[in-house]
Amino acid sequence: MDVGFIGLGGMGRAMARRLLAAGHSVRVWNRSPAPVAELVADGATAAGTLAGAFGAQVVVSMLADDRVVESLLLDEELLAEAQAATHVNMATVSPALARRAAELHARHGIGYVAAPVLGRTDVAAAGNLNVLAAGPAAELDRVAPLFEAMGRRTWPLGEDPAAANVAKISANFLLVSAIEAFSEAAALAEASGLDPAALLAVLTDSLFPGPVYAGYGGMITRQSFEPAGFRLALGLKDVNLALAAGSDAEVPLPLASLLRDSLLQAIAHGHGEQDLAAISTTSRTRAGI
Amino acid sequence: MDVGFIGLGGMGRAMARRLLAAGHSVRVWNRSPAPVAELVADGATAAGTLAGAFGAQVVVSMLADDRVVESLLLDEELLAEAQAATHVNMATVSPALARRAAELHARHGIGYVAAPVLGRTDVAAAGNLNVLAAGPAAELDRVAPLFEAMGRRTWPLGEDPAAANVAKISANFLLVSAIEAFSEAAALAEASGLDPAALLAVLTDSLFPGPVYAGYGGMITRQSFEPAGFRLALGLKDVNLALAAGSDAEVPLPLASLLRDSLLQAIAHGHGEQDLAAISTTSRTRAGI
Amino acid sequence: MDVGFIGLGGMGRAMARRLLAAGHSVRVWNRSPAPVAELVADGATAAGTLAGAFGAQVVVSMLADDRVVESLLLDEELLAEAQAATHVNMATVSPALARRAAELHARHGIGYVAAPVLGRTDVAAAGNLNVLAAGPAAELDRVAPLFEAMGRRTWPLGEDPAAANVAKISANFLLVSAIEAFSEAAALAEASGLDPAALLAVLTDSLFPGPVYAGYGGMITRQSFEPAGFRLALGLKDVNLALAAGSDAEVPLPLASLLRDSLLQAIAHGHGEQDLAAISTTSRTRAGI
Amino acid sequence: MDVGFIGLGGMGRAMARRLLAAGHSVRVWNRSPAPVAELVADGATAAGTLAGAFGAQVVVSMLADDRVVESLLLDEELLAEAQAATHVNMATVSPALARRAAELHARHGIGYVAAPVLGRTDVAAAGNLNVLAAGPAAELDRVAPLFEAMGRRTWPLGEDPAAANVAKISANFLLVSAIEAFSEAAALAEASGLDPAALLAVLTDSLFPGPVYAGYGGMITRQSFEPAGFRLALGLKDVNLALAAGSDAEVPLPLASLLRDSLLQAIAHGHGEQDLAAISTTSRTRAGI
Repeated sequence: MDVGFIGLGGMGRAMARRLLAAGHSVRVWNRSPAPVAELVADGATAAGTLAGAFGAQVVVSMLADDRVVESLLLDEELLAEAQAATHVNMATVSPALARRAAELHARHGIGYVAAPVLGRTDVAAAGNLNVLAAGPAAELDRVAPLFEAMGRRTWPLGEDPAAANVAKISANFLLVSAIEAFSEAAALAEASGLDPAALLAVLTDSLFPGPVYAGYGGMITRQSFEPAGFRLALGLKDVNLALAAGSDAEVPLPLASLLRDSLLQAIAHGHGEQDLAAISTTSRTRAGI
Repeated sequence: MDVGFIGLGGMGRAMARRLLAAGHSVRVWNRSPAPVAELVADGATAAGTLAGAFGAQVVVSMLADDRVVESLLLDEELLAEAQAATHVNMATVSPALARRAAELHARHGIGYVAAPVLGRTDVAAAGNLNVLAAGPAAELDRVAPLFEAMGRRTWPLGEDPAAANVAKISANFLLVSAIEAFSEAAALAEASGLDPAALLAVLTDSLFPGPVYAGYGGMITRQSFEPAGFRLALGLKDVNLALAAGSDAEVPLPLASLLRDSLLQAIAHGHGEQDLAAISTTSRTRAGI
Repeated sequence: MDVGFIGLGGMGRAMARRLLAAGHSVRVWNRSPAPVAELVADGATAAGTLAGAFGAQVVVSMLADDRVVESLLLDEELLAEAQAATHVNMATVSPALARRAAELHARHGIGYVAAPVLGRTDVAAAGNLNVLAAGPAAELDRVAPLFEAMGRRTWPLGEDPAAANVAKISANFLLVSAIEAFSEAAALAEASGLDPAALLAVLTDSLFPGPVYAGYGGMITRQSFEPAGFRLALGLKDVNLALAAGSDAEVPLPLASLLRDSLLQAIAHGHGEQDLAAISTTSRTRAGI
Repeated sequence: MDVGFIGLGGMGRAMARRLLAAGHSVRVWNRSPAPVAELVADGATAAGTLAGAFGAQVVVSMLADDRVVESLLLDEELLAEAQAATHVNMATVSPALARRAAELHARHGIGYVAAPVLGRTDVAAAGNLNVLAAGPAAELDRVAPLFEAMGRRTWPLGEDPAAANVAKISANFLLVSAIEAFSEAAALAEASGLDPAALLAVLTDSLFPGPVYAGYGGMITRQSFEPAGFRLALGLKDVNLALAAGSDAEVPLPLASLLRDSLLQAIAHGHGEQDLAAISTTSRTRAGI
């Protein structure tokens, strides 16, 4: 398929490479030029402009946040002249933006699909992402081969693109919740004479298998937060998306409020660029550890 | 081994039967007589009195809570006349009680081991409990065969019995945290047009495998809370133990505070005897769902 | 003084009338025409356009929120052609907006003063507002006669306009905090067999004199929330301003987070257009009252 | 009247002196002898034993907390032999204790009145306490002259003694709430470039007159917490009473939970023996100030 790909950060580069490896033709665009050159060396072509990227059959975008998507892509002129039949926005953005975007694309006859993903850059490089996809059924069918190239599984979440964004935001909210919970427990353990690592070993072999408790829990028991797999400041961004979605839907989320305050404290204490696991410093500070 | 077993609730009966099945001689005691008769039919003998149970080599107790342990077993006279070398308290009680108990038993020359377990009655019946054990190494060695009969694995957590209680309380705190987090996310999903069951399917196949999210999450997406596998009122008891342990160790646990308030609201709305998953009714009430 | 006055809602009308009554010449502007006609009948002139209002010596604005101020007044063209020496923004807006506005006005040689007020429309009509004023000293001096016409007292809060907005936001945060606190206490009282009105009588005659506890407390004990003196939805707007200011300054405000969730629940239950005192419905719902 | 007075801490001494000054005959008892000698020098007689104090017409007690009241006064033997017609418990204790005490006293034919007070030792010395009184009307009438000697005003709160304890607990909950709210606002102010003292001056002259904001607020703006007028650890005791009362009445009090965590953090950081205003150190620690 002829694909435009917009946004070549760590995730975007890995995903675009998977499309190339699956035999798709990919025109790439990025604000800074170095990643474009890198992908061109891998077989992509340079789109030159956003309009160039929107000249492909399908456009995939993987940008940083609502603000960037809004300023670059929710542009009447760009969409009016686009050739693309479908735009797949794979970034973690707000459901509110998805609703505005879907409406705007519809006015210009372009299908809009929201397809945020679960997985970090190494998972993306291996093509093992979980793709949370929502949009009109025909659009989802059209872009299914792209998802197959990038992910281990596609989860269809209905016709309303915003639903996929709610799912992604919820997943990250649960992720941060689990980390805060273990952080508090680890502080209690340490102050009570129980080795937090021993506690973690029990938990991951019983109630809480899987990557989250083992991975973040391990960083917490070692109090080692670098290099950052998932930056704490990004965790706050995602919790704020959950709170904003809750506000729009009139759903109080007191646990998300608590996470926001814990993360903000960690940032105030200089941990914003460290891994999300550094939220545990807040629990320790509370206890004077 | 000659074992006294005190407390034949659902968990106690299943655990005592595992000891019988492993060939141990078991003298049982229970406040009400019916469970005693049941176990005698299975091969146990009736201890008759608490002193009778403490006439065995080792005593295992599995009572409801701090108050019951305190009033029945932390008794100077009972301990002064006990023959037992070791008392293994497998109930979920406070670390503070463990400290008082260890000190009192030591004065009477009895070893005290705290060994709370992870797993419900069906897990206990299958001998698959995780045993969180702490106490003097020689005592843990002595009772290891009993743990082998009852559990899939024994987790030694050090010399201080209280540490095992901290571990159990922490595990249950994390359990309730995970359920609250999913409850809030499910309310957000429902109010935003995303099917909570679809969200749950994604999560349990990606970030959150294991029994907790699948099991409690399923009850939450179905809003079906009976029969109660783990009564909500017991969940509040355990969260209160976490808060009390935090208070003793001067460790603020704001997430435990939030859970306490959510559980208390669920109880105020009549869900105390339902499954812990009914904490999700609080999230729905907040959102007016 | 020759004054432009922008924004003739309930507060704006009352404040503009005070300026007229003190002998100032006032050119008024409002998005909808009826309030303009009303003020012209009182002796004002119609500014016709925003540029007309900015043709006066001093401009006073009293608009709804950040978004409206941003879109109407933070306009390069408007400010470039303005005659006014000083712009006094008396609305409750964010400190972040004050910083952007001050910088933008400075580039166009216009002094920017932030002067939000404490008091509702009846207080404004009586000229009894408390004016929280911050900005360059010379600018504060210039507009002092206007503040004297509108307020009982002017509180100079330094050279940085944002400080005045922080003060106003803090005052409203404390106001909502007091109301939430009494709401929770009233629910506890009612559920415990203590008449909340008797509790309120004690409190207002001892620890908590003044208008806040008596006024809002009275509405809470009567569970009577109409007519709305201060709309609950506006209370949420102000708490959100506090949270945003906290976020910018890296100051966690867990009590503001709690208030946000209580207010959001009240809105989800249909109380957004009632008085702020309706936040008490959340405490009652929690308790199943 | 012939009065037994039990408990001669700072408050008890001041209150007993007021009774003496009003011409009552007072037999005093205290666990340690020095305060007894002090009051005897002021005209009291030494009761010698608790039974001696209960030999008077009316007994007033002012003990530290539930535990002390329970162990000293809720004693079958003591009450069985008492001559006193009425026992007035003026301590800040739980409504649950009041209910048990009322029931126990009734069985022995003794009237039980709960009459906790608002005011510290200086207020007590001046006879300006607010007396929150509940109990059978005839009992309240009987002891009214004592209240007149000790307080500026008696607030009758109904027949159920527990109601008076709920009122006192609520008042202290509101007090700590106000202090936490101002603490958070002061941290926001300081981090935002607004002088917290200037903020306090505005607030106490407008929305929040009265002793609470001015008094505690002043300590907070000066970050000066000694000598302790109201020890922070006692504040935590009272917030815990509120939470326990909420738990008994199935009333979630999330603001009380937040206060508990803030106070516990302050204690973990070494502020337990300082004034309650030191709760503000928690807000500052959160913000990294």
